[in-house]
Amino acid sequence: MTTTLFDKLGWRYATKKMDPSRPVPQEKVDQIVEAVRMAPTSSGTQPFRLFVVTNPEVREKIREAANGQTQITDGSHLLVFAAWDNYSEERIDDVVRHMEAERGKSETLSAYYERLKSLYLPRDAATNHAHAAHQAYIGLGFALAAAAELEVDSTPMEGFDPDKVDAILGLKEKGLHSVILLPLGYREEENDWLVNMKKVRKPRADFVTEVA
Amino acid sequence: MTTTLFDKLGWRYATKKMDPSRPVPQEKVDQIVEAVRMAPTSSGTQPFRLFVVTNPEVREKIREAANGQTQITDGSHLLVFAAWDNYSEERIDDVVRHMEAERGKSETLSAYYERLKSLYLPRDAATNHAHAAHQAYIGLGFALAAAAELEVDSTPMEGFDPDKVDAILGLKEKGLHSVILLPLGYREEENDWLVNMKKVRKPRADFVTEVA
Repeated sequence: MTTTLFDKLGWRYATKKMDPSRPVPQEKVDQIVEAVRMAPTSSGTQPFRLFVVTNPEVREKIREAANGQTQITDGSHLLVFAAWDNYSEERIDDVVRHMEAERGKSETLSAYYERLKSLYLPRDAATNHAHAAHQAYIGLGFALAAAAELEVDSTPMEGFDPDKVDAILGLKEKGLHSVILLPLGYREEENDWLVNMKKVRKPRADFVTEVA
Repeated sequence: MTTTLFDKLGWRYATKKMDPSRPVPQEKVDQIVEAVRMAPTSSGTQPFRLFVVTNPEVREKIREAANGQTQITDGSHLLVFAAWDNYSEERIDDVVRHMEAERGKSETLSAYYERLKSLYLPRDAATNHAHAAHQAYIGLGFALAAAAELEVDSTPMEGFDPDKVDAILGLKEKGLHSVILLPLGYREEENDWLVNMKKVRKPRADFVTEVA
């Protein structure tokens, strides 16, 4: 039976120890990356980039900037989500150009993005970066769901020094700022303190409100 | 054949016109809601709430606060993601209490959350709210993936006045702030200008960087 997301919601967890002898097959990494690329974003701007890091030295440096979390080097691949530091006229015009190339020009499309620019460009960089980062988190959601469905383990991480990771990957020059790390790999169950722990989520009644 | 997420990445789109005569079956809504509840969040805090709005008058008011977007009332269910306005000692202690009840007490757990409080509580509300909102966006990613897999249409929306939606749903008193609207329903193809348009995404080479 084909695995669906729903079969795996309980299976997935934030893997604390990955098995360095079990790399994720490239085709599965490609499927996860494709899910991130296909994720929707606000106004289709896709205001973030995805880095797929396999290089061992680079991952060792990133691990040092991430409280030594072992999954970064024990996993076979490290995804880094790097959001735009700001919106700019150039970046938004680029989106429009691409959309026109794919769908043809239209007054509605042009007007929509002119309005978007008038809303975004006067805002400060911090506000714009936070908005771009939100879109990266949609991508993260798709990556986590995709990984679970492929029975690939992963560990979403915010616990790292983004300035250090930016320096390691040369992100500042690209107008990017790292927001999430996502190691991919396979759990090493005998050394993972979390794997057999009960998954904790707020009960539905505490989390969901029905307005009927 | 069971549908997987990967089969549906191209099928899903931001539905512009929903069919008011086709409600989403409750069991599918429940599965989507469960996917959001089961989504991971930073330190397991789940710092947002999910509102499932079916009430027609409430949805009419929300629609007015959302530039009149018709999916809000044409769809059968409206999900509203409302993130914590701030972290607080009480909210974090609540998370700890629940985790201890489920997993048992531990020094490591207590120490982890004491450290979290020392990091979060001195920060300003805007920073904390943005962080909480990021976690809501992970939930949104899971909702979008779950909906696609169930062949339920949806439309993620940021284009609304959050203060007005907060007032309509009484969120301020609950210490919440609306961040995303997600109508659920079924596309009305003959009236949806977007349904047959080519899906636009940045080419892989522009979106993904391999660091090998």
